[in-house]
Amino acid sequence: MINVGLFGATGYTGFETLKILKNHPHVRLKFATSESSEGQLYSEVYPVPWDISLVSSERADLAGVDAVFCCLPHAASIPTVRRAREAGLRIIDLSADFRLKNVAAYEKWYGIEHTAPDLMAEAVYGLCEVNRPAIRETDLLAVPGCYPTSILLALYPLLKENLLNPTMPLIADSKSGVSGAGRKLSLKSHFVEANENLSPYNIGQKHRHTAEIRETLETWGGGDLSFIFSPHLVPVSRGMLSTIYASLAQDMTAGDAQAYFAETYESEPLVRVLPPGELATFAHTQRNNSCALSVTWVNERQLIICASIDNLGKGAAGQAVQNFNIMFGVEETTALV
Amino acid sequence: MINVGLFGATGYTGFETLKILKNHPHVRLKFATSESSEGQLYSEVYPVPWDISLVSSERADLAGVDAVFCCLPHAASIPTVRRAREAGLRIIDLSADFRLKNVAAYEKWYGIEHTAPDLMAEAVYGLCEVNRPAIRETDLLAVPGCYPTSILLALYPLLKENLLNPTMPLIADSKSGVSGAGRKLSLKSHFVEANENLSPYNIGQKHRHTAEIRETLETWGGGDLSFIFSPHLVPVSRGMLSTIYASLAQDMTAGDAQAYFAETYESEPLVRVLPPGELATFAHTQRNNSCALSVTWVNERQLIICASIDNLGKGAAGQAVQNFNIMFGVEETTALV
Amino acid sequence: MINVGLFGATGYTGFETLKILKNHPHVRLKFATSESSEGQLYSEVYPVPWDISLVSSERADLAGVDAVFCCLPHAASIPTVRRAREAGLRIIDLSADFRLKNVAAYEKWYGIEHTAPDLMAEAVYGLCEVNRPAIRETDLLAVPGCYPTSILLALYPLLKENLLNPTMPLIADSKSGVSGAGRKLSLKSHFVEANENLSPYNIGQKHRHTAEIRETLETWGGGDLSFIFSPHLVPVSRGMLSTIYASLAQDMTAGDAQAYFAETYESEPLVRVLPPGELATFAHTQRNNSCALSVTWVNERQLIICASIDNLGKGAAGQAVQNFNIMFGVEETTALV
Amino acid sequence: MINVGLFGATGYTGFETLKILKNHPHVRLKFATSESSEGQLYSEVYPVPWDISLVSSERADLAGVDAVFCCLPHAASIPTVRRAREAGLRIIDLSADFRLKNVAAYEKWYGIEHTAPDLMAEAVYGLCEVNRPAIRETDLLAVPGCYPTSILLALYPLLKENLLNPTMPLIADSKSGVSGAGRKLSLKSHFVEANENLSPYNIGQKHRHTAEIRETLETWGGGDLSFIFSPHLVPVSRGMLSTIYASLAQDMTAGDAQAYFAETYESEPLVRVLPPGELATFAHTQRNNSCALSVTWVNERQLIICASIDNLGKGAAGQAVQNFNIMFGVEETTALV
Repeated sequence: MINVGLFGATGYTGFETLKILKNHPHVRLKFATSESSEGQLYSEVYPVPWDISLVSSERADLAGVDAVFCCLPHAASIPTVRRAREAGLRIIDLSADFRLKNVAAYEKWYGIEHTAPDLMAEAVYGLCEVNRPAIRETDLLAVPGCYPTSILLALYPLLKENLLNPTMPLIADSKSGVSGAGRKLSLKSHFVEANENLSPYNIGQKHRHTAEIRETLETWGGGDLSFIFSPHLVPVSRGMLSTIYASLAQDMTAGDAQAYFAETYESEPLVRVLPPGELATFAHTQRNNSCALSVTWVNERQLIICASIDNLGKGAAGQAVQNFNIMFGVEETTALV
Repeated sequence: MINVGLFGATGYTGFETLKILKNHPHVRLKFATSESSEGQLYSEVYPVPWDISLVSSERADLAGVDAVFCCLPHAASIPTVRRAREAGLRIIDLSADFRLKNVAAYEKWYGIEHTAPDLMAEAVYGLCEVNRPAIRETDLLAVPGCYPTSILLALYPLLKENLLNPTMPLIADSKSGVSGAGRKLSLKSHFVEANENLSPYNIGQKHRHTAEIRETLETWGGGDLSFIFSPHLVPVSRGMLSTIYASLAQDMTAGDAQAYFAETYESEPLVRVLPPGELATFAHTQRNNSCALSVTWVNERQLIICASIDNLGKGAAGQAVQNFNIMFGVEETTALV
Repeated sequence: MINVGLFGATGYTGFETLKILKNHPHVRLKFATSESSEGQLYSEVYPVPWDISLVSSERADLAGVDAVFCCLPHAASIPTVRRAREAGLRIIDLSADFRLKNVAAYEKWYGIEHTAPDLMAEAVYGLCEVNRPAIRETDLLAVPGCYPTSILLALYPLLKENLLNPTMPLIADSKSGVSGAGRKLSLKSHFVEANENLSPYNIGQKHRHTAEIRETLETWGGGDLSFIFSPHLVPVSRGMLSTIYASLAQDMTAGDAQAYFAETYESEPLVRVLPPGELATFAHTQRNNSCALSVTWVNERQLIICASIDNLGKGAAGQAVQNFNIMFGVEETTALV
Repeated sequence: MINVGLFGATGYTGFETLKILKNHPHVRLKFATSESSEGQLYSEVYPVPWDISLVSSERADLAGVDAVFCCLPHAASIPTVRRAREAGLRIIDLSADFRLKNVAAYEKWYGIEHTAPDLMAEAVYGLCEVNRPAIRETDLLAVPGCYPTSILLALYPLLKENLLNPTMPLIADSKSGVSGAGRKLSLKSHFVEANENLSPYNIGQKHRHTAEIRETLETWGGGDLSFIFSPHLVPVSRGMLSTIYASLAQDMTAGDAQAYFAETYESEPLVRVLPPGELATFAHTQRNNSCALSVTWVNERQLIICASIDNLGKGAAGQAVQNFNIMFGVEETTALV
């Protein structure tokens, strides 16, 4: 059994992570923290029958703990990760604080000083299907953001063979359910404002996930790509679809494109390339921990990749536990399928 | 032209009232207030192209104004109504502050002292179809709450002829869209919490509208009725349905029940008794200013009345303007159909 | 391992049953039938990666099968159950065809002749928490309807001690998600008609489930109760809440009422009586297989019981598998929690 | 008064057209047709109190009629338009049958022979803001499709000055509410399938509106553009947003781009260019008859235009009546604002 602690248990990603961990046969939960609901039972915070006592972060006892999941907001995660690191624990962090290597980029996009650049340098970016060897070895794992997960899994097959045309714009038009904005109250997430509405937001290179995506594209040799990212909020609780317009550097047939994606992911248990003619939708991945990809051939130089994930599943808690499973040498899909 | 001011223009009832007033051929808007958005244009607060400047309440100039609509929260309404009354204006108040005559009941249910009991005594309860003569004469009109409107319009035909059995419970199981809870942020109105959910709340005589309904029932001679009111929140932006279970004091055929309701409201332009077999739904009244009633005969001593209104239409702004039209001798449905 | 066949695999109850059975550690699926999708893979019918081949009912091979689940529409179930019964299999039937004992009532409410009254007589009504001993022994199990499950679990504590006042109406005001109406196309289930709407339907003793509820109430000694059932359709995919107004035959305190319900179900793994002050909502049981009950005291003679189930979980597939587990002596909550 | 007939009154576009015409001060409705609901009152088909009798198409009396609106499905529209044309009436046709000039393209995309190529040649494409002079003179008006309206209004300012770079893909990623698929039953529009889902469909040059958009682009000198159109279905009753990625042929500042769009439409009453920083959403145009455009500058060669319309408003019925108003010399926004 692996002894696990959970920081930030009452946000949506914390809730999903806890739900998965409760069913994980190799996990023993040692604590779950919440600042706003300290001293309450979990069943007082969500309509679930879980009699888990919530403690404040500072009262969380790290003794005997093997690993912690951090589901805290960005910035708030840094001191907690520092503390856990100093206690020698392995960490799975779901915030944005350790995803980037470029400290200046972090500070520009998040508008704050990063107080742990040493840990930033140490962290491994947990895109499981691509970084598995490094994930296995790391003690500090940064779980990718939801938008980046959907977009990077769609682009990886094209990048790894250098198939994209850098003189053409590479466009990701993404649609997300409202839980992606968290449980914090905001007018944007107010039922009457979000319901029956659909809104683009932070388009034109203004969304923070742009930095995260760009940095990974650079790592993969796509530093010269003209990447455009346009998120939209849709009136659905959970779900994410990125519709990606990719211009190719060389001619490709529809069959080759399909086969190429299928081969890239053929042994992956949590990425599914749909058969020709079937398009990825929210429904393909809602409330599960996988990614569904569809490949639509427009012409010999143009593909549309649709990538579907659940923003709280493969886009957050599911991917976090997948990373945890890899780190601890447990069967990768344990508690996830 | 009637010169009109609007206090509390940026909540949902203020927004709806403004929308109706803008199309009212006899109204000239003199000011619209907002404390939170003072100094902004209306188009910065809602996605509408209205270039109305919002002023704070205290900067609203009452000179030359004939009437004001108050769309303020309860308690906040009292000083504003006092001020407008002292300026000699006619007032249509949409808050709960002037609906009751019983000061003690107000203070018990709302948990605050009422500082204007003289105005409470003076105010007329604006259930248009029942109180038209008094509405015509008043300078201080209290617009009924949304739940009370739906329930009282359903019960009035039975009460006025003393047809209810007081030894049996009289039950109103009501369902409301989320805009009834206002634009104020709350976890209950957070998209992810409300969406795909349905929740009873304040059932078992705990909802404040119980007092308002009971007081009117007493006025109508139903003081001995055992009234039970159960509100439910449904994941819809706008709409309200009250399913009312009425035990009769004497036998009644289905045909008589139907005919009796139809006759009661036959000359009413904004109450529609549906033909036999058609049940009232949210769709019957959504985004209009009417009430739809259906009469279902269970047995000779038991009826189910379904009453549908839009909580922001006949349940708030629509009924407010209907009252205004009556008060100013304008055709009653002006700007409402 | 228990060899299981599934008739009617592609409706919503079939889909949910299959989803549970796939995770059941003691079940080996032998066949899944569909008339409309015969010859297709399951992944062509729903956006799931299940490569189960669908066969027509008549091609389903019963050899070596221990039990079958029938998720067919009413009437269609009769010949299939007959066939499975003749093959000596144990049957869990989710249709309405074997729930009633009264053949005349069936024929009146369903408008067709019942061609297997012998099997009707033999069938056990699978309300697990009440009928467990008989369920254990039966070879033909009729899974209760969704509305009856929610209402009967709420009323059982009151009926078993004869606490209801038969001179007062007993009212169940129920709200259901749209999946309760099945995957068959209808204007009522068309997105644009159902969305943002809420509709009562078949109220006033017109819904077929009335017969099923009444028959069980009679079994429990409540034959003289004046039961009124009012279903409403709400714009939610899954979920059901019955708000039940019960008049008591004797005085009861709030504490006693709460304690009494809690005791009745205290050892039940799939029925949860919520703590005082917490009301049952859709969210309590959505996508799980339990029932949540809340007890609201109105006065010493009047209670409101709110009963929440997922119409496809405890209201259909979950309860079907719970019955299956009891029948086969497997831990009752296997694959259900 | 203009005497008007309505063919196809009971689909969603027919319903919306009727709703507008009932409030049109210069229109007298002579007939409304429905094949499926012939002989019924309109109030039996929708929950509205309109006592309009529905007649079959063939019983519609054209005598004394000045104009007809055809809200029939494609193909079905052709013989009705022929008949009305022969009776000398002015026609506003909302189907796809007369939007194209290229008969071969029509026959390829719609899979049927067009039996009235003479009328195709005669028809005027009713994009009001661009084709007003021709609209004024025509007797046969083809109302643009919803997707084309949103996309063409967004592109017109760029095309008319030849500002697009033809070597780059021009991409429209569009999102539509479910009413765009009509009232006809389909699994795609079934509540449980569409709700909480989001689906791309007919992407990669497979949607019929591609032909309509391309033909207009050609007319505007954009025949060499590499246009890609990707529609998505979103779980909302009404609304449409097209997110358009446009590569420029020359450098442009953000200010110039904004000013250029604002100037193009500055005198248009039903197209609104939003101020800098405000993005077009469904909410901007839901249940009204206008188009809202926002201009987002990505870099000096790349813009994102978001175009919002209500698919039943400016995307169908609203634009139909706008055309009618122009044709009959009535104030263009009559009954539309």
